[in-house]
Amino acid sequence: MKKALTSGLAGAAALAGAAFAEPADRAAVEKVLSTYETALNAKDVETIIALYADDGVFMPQHSSPQVGRAAVREAYRRVFAAITLDIEFHVDEIEPLSATWAFARTRSEGQVTVNATGQSAGEANQELFLFRRTDDGKWKIARYIFSTTNPPRQ
Amino acid sequence: MKKALTSGLAGAAALAGAAFAEPADRAAVEKVLSTYETALNAKDVETIIALYADDGVFMPQHSSPQVGRAAVREAYRRVFAAITLDIEFHVDEIEPLSATWAFARTRSEGQVTVNATGQSAGEANQELFLFRRTDDGKWKIARYIFSTTNPPRQ
Repeated sequence: MKKALTSGLAGAAALAGAAFAEPADRAAVEKVLSTYETALNAKDVETIIALYADDGVFMPQHSSPQVGRAAVREAYRRVFAAITLDIEFHVDEIEPLSATWAFARTRSEGQVTVNATGQSAGEANQELFLFRRTDDGKWKIARYIFSTTNPPRQ
Repeated sequence: MKKALTSGLAGAAALAGAAFAEPADRAAVEKVLSTYETALNAKDVETIIALYADDGVFMPQHSSPQVGRAAVREAYRRVFAAITLDIEFHVDEIEPLSATWAFARTRSEGQVTVNATGQSAGEANQELFLFRRTDDGKWKIARYIFSTTNPPRQ
């Protein structure tokens, strides 16, 4: 019975997919975040888009939600046409939610420069990322929202 | 063997907790959202706090993340001291992530009144909620962030 139960558990695990693997899956999620940081500062739209799931949703402040890769790509193009970022992310937490889902809560800080004027200002945001592991084992950004932590402009 | 495998699967399901149940768990999450909407408009801090997990995190715009119930309570008190809301939520999606996690992506729209001046303005936000099912079967807000979808103030 013990053996049969073990087989059953293994079968269930196979059906559900492997569990979130420490430290490999966590490292993979961290790698997505660091790649995102670098690509954001480099205005590298295609690298960013490759980090998103096909049906990923980007929820930038001052914009309605951008659903799916084509809309997400256009949104980043608009952002990079308007501003240049020089920011660093700090990871507050990365938590597995299941074998195929995880979230990260982060903060970011640095400088934003308005391209049209050359004017720079301090930028500080908080972010919530939902990641999904795709069938080929890659972790992708499924949902992403941020908001400023700076006080309101007077 | 088939029977033993089935028992094993049942054992695994028991270990993992029951799966996300449709429509009951979805309805429970929807109920948290509608209770939140009503309490937000009524400035009902204690009802809101009861919707949060003990270690819940509230990430209001223009504020650093508020971690844990005591900090979340103080944050809502500050919000309600400053503004009065009259808003409605629209649910774009509720998705289960596991037996004990789900997320909701919503938008909200209505009026915000600045208490100090009585001045009202249109309010429009997008939100991402992470919900966790506690051991007693209740769905709680584990993480919550929003950002405005209005254009930047000029």
